[in-house]
Amino acid sequence: MSGPDLNSLSVTEIARRIAAGETTAVAVTEACLARIEAREDGLRAWAFVDPELVLEQAHACDHETRQGLLHGVPLGIKDIIDTHDMPTEMGSPIYAGHRPPADAACVSLVRGAGAVILGKTVTTEFAGSHPGPTTNPHDVARSPGGSSSGSAAAVADFMVPAAFGTQTGSSILRPSAYCGVIGYNPTFGTYNIAGIKAAAQSLDTLGLHVRDLDDIQLLTAVLINRPFVPLKAASSGPRIGVCRTPLWDAAQTETQAALEDAASRLAQAGATMCDVTLPDAFARLEEVRILINCYERSRHMTNEWRDHRDSLSDRFQTVMQTGLDAAYENYVAAMRLTEDCRQQSDGLFEGLDMLLAPCVDGEASEGLENGGNPRFAGLWTAIRLPALSLPTHTGPNGMPVGIQLVGRYRDDDRLLSAAKWVLGKLGIPSTG
Amino acid sequence: MSGPDLNSLSVTEIARRIAAGETTAVAVTEACLARIEAREDGLRAWAFVDPELVLEQAHACDHETRQGLLHGVPLGIKDIIDTHDMPTEMGSPIYAGHRPPADAACVSLVRGAGAVILGKTVTTEFAGSHPGPTTNPHDVARSPGGSSSGSAAAVADFMVPAAFGTQTGSSILRPSAYCGVIGYNPTFGTYNIAGIKAAAQSLDTLGLHVRDLDDIQLLTAVLINRPFVPLKAASSGPRIGVCRTPLWDAAQTETQAALEDAASRLAQAGATMCDVTLPDAFARLEEVRILINCYERSRHMTNEWRDHRDSLSDRFQTVMQTGLDAAYENYVAAMRLTEDCRQQSDGLFEGLDMLLAPCVDGEASEGLENGGNPRFAGLWTAIRLPALSLPTHTGPNGMPVGIQLVGRYRDDDRLLSAAKWVLGKLGIPSTG
Repeated sequence: MSGPDLNSLSVTEIARRIAAGETTAVAVTEACLARIEAREDGLRAWAFVDPELVLEQAHACDHETRQGLLHGVPLGIKDIIDTHDMPTEMGSPIYAGHRPPADAACVSLVRGAGAVILGKTVTTEFAGSHPGPTTNPHDVARSPGGSSSGSAAAVADFMVPAAFGTQTGSSILRPSAYCGVIGYNPTFGTYNIAGIKAAAQSLDTLGLHVRDLDDIQLLTAVLINRPFVPLKAASSGPRIGVCRTPLWDAAQTETQAALEDAASRLAQAGATMCDVTLPDAFARLEEVRILINCYERSRHMTNEWRDHRDSLSDRFQTVMQTGLDAAYENYVAAMRLTEDCRQQSDGLFEGLDMLLAPCVDGEASEGLENGGNPRFAGLWTAIRLPALSLPTHTGPNGMPVGIQLVGRYRDDDRLLSAAKWVLGKLGIPSTG
Repeated sequence: MSGPDLNSLSVTEIARRIAAGETTAVAVTEACLARIEAREDGLRAWAFVDPELVLEQAHACDHETRQGLLHGVPLGIKDIIDTHDMPTEMGSPIYAGHRPPADAACVSLVRGAGAVILGKTVTTEFAGSHPGPTTNPHDVARSPGGSSSGSAAAVADFMVPAAFGTQTGSSILRPSAYCGVIGYNPTFGTYNIAGIKAAAQSLDTLGLHVRDLDDIQLLTAVLINRPFVPLKAASSGPRIGVCRTPLWDAAQTETQAALEDAASRLAQAGATMCDVTLPDAFARLEEVRILINCYERSRHMTNEWRDHRDSLSDRFQTVMQTGLDAAYENYVAAMRLTEDCRQQSDGLFEGLDMLLAPCVDGEASEGLENGGNPRFAGLWTAIRLPALSLPTHTGPNGMPVGIQLVGRYRDDDRLLSAAKWVLGKLGIPSTG
């Protein structure tokens, strides 16, 4: 067979070829496993891959009738998401060898649609800031970002076409931006999170790392159980608000340049652009998001805190202690502020299809210890809006730099079709 | 020792006596176990009690320094809540003998405060409508209500001073009203739900069944980790809105009579009363709550639906199928309506401390199959407001009939102190 290697195809294309009899689940899976075999020593994106178990699933796909939209498509699962047939270790020695009794809802849904579960991808410790071993596929000396480090790196490195990530601050968008893939954090609550280890229940969102925007539409159809209609780009230039946010001065040159370049090229391409300034209350969102994160974490990690404190990293213990020291009244005030800003955000989108905003401080840092600051995506996570990172730019070291597109609350479909228009105009540079 | 039996004391009083050296954890636990031994054959409130394991915990309490506010206090745990040392069977054969690896956050928190975990209380199947074996302590031929059937019945029958319940529709308030105890469903998200089997994540709330309002304050201090300040009744008559709701005509005579009697006696006692009419949008809340419940359940129970469908009750399968058949757009519209009504609800409380509303259709039904309709409490659960059921009245068959007090969003403290004033005026009739 000519054309690109099977492991570099999108979810949509793999599903199409298998359905058309042009390839098999086993062939695709073998291509992914071969890529992992060749590259995993340097990348360390996987917490668990059992080739025998994976090929067994792929063989079953090839010998049964088509199960659904994802028949034969390999997927990666962040290792805080339960799988009944693979360990779920949460990036923590506390859960070494832990085998959950059942699949998380999202795993069960994609299995039901025929997906092959390729393995578990590395997460930072409990999806917090203490890093795992994963490196950046564009430069092994740099961080892949966290917390969905392995998912972003594995997708970027063509080991798997798509993987689940979760976001409480910027844990999907940041590693996606650092590794040069597309990250999607839907409106809070869109994909079901049963069977996923909670970080902060008011913020936790299940989302995706992909290399092709169309794949989001396909995976969403499975995850929310709606009919699949292929993603169409907005038919005319979308109306885009450029929102530099109160954090603008914290952005590095490459992030500022990426945003300005995107805004200018999109205007030239026919988008209607305007500047959007956030209401005053939004200036405190980053501070209250951190408080909510620490407060909620410290409550639902009570068990680990009581019985396994010594096995938690220093960084994690600091988060826990900050949360335990936080006054309930301050937590409630923080929740009220996020709810008020969520309400006010509807007004920001009057006459607009989406916002264009900074995604990350800049390129991925050198060294694995610093997974990056979550503030630029965290702002929108705090108010539950859908957001995408698109790997449209590069920085001074040739590393990917993402831009962020933010949608109106519960208006993910509009965001995605506008984003498809945007990506069509900006393209993805070749890196690494 | 004179006075009431140890098993009939409140959480607050047990904690006080143990701290003062007036009794021991073992003595209290033995009294609870003796009550269970004497009455469980008829009541069937417990899914699991291991007297040896319980007494071991109590002995440990008596031989160690005071752990916290609940030192030596026995508590019951609804059987959808994970416990590391007891099975968690969820009222379903699918989870027969299931042993979770760790405690749910709420269990870990009360253990950390010194509580003795007495056992697991019967839940309906996955906290849905298919009943367990529990009977009503006031009439074994009648339903205890669901889904927190065992928790409400065990507290009512003096087997344990308090128990955890969970509410997605009216699963705390209804069994509390049927069994004649106090039920408390806090503002959504107040108590952490990590380690609790999800029913519908946008609605699920962890709460309490108690016999004494003061106990809510004590347990809340532990569960949200704030300093304990004893509950004080409002110093003057609260301002109460009487809200008959659009469902008023569905209420049986005894519920209508309870509400009118409460309103009239509270007015006489010095409360400021007014009638509150709900905005039009609220008329659809019951319908959309059902849709949200079915939709979300059908997503996160994917695993059980795929692998164990035959072990689900017919009733449960109907809920799952309804959810799977629901269009995503309708779910989103339903969520939008609840969010709009939540916002509008702030206006209802202008100048008011709380609402007085119907709690249940009427007395508990005869037979165990019909656990009652969730609509009267479900209205407020759908918009995440805190609510209490107080067992202040009785019906034509001498069975308890509760009234419902509803607080402003995130204003639980005001609700509780106003409720203490109300309960002081209305009292709890002796029944059964």
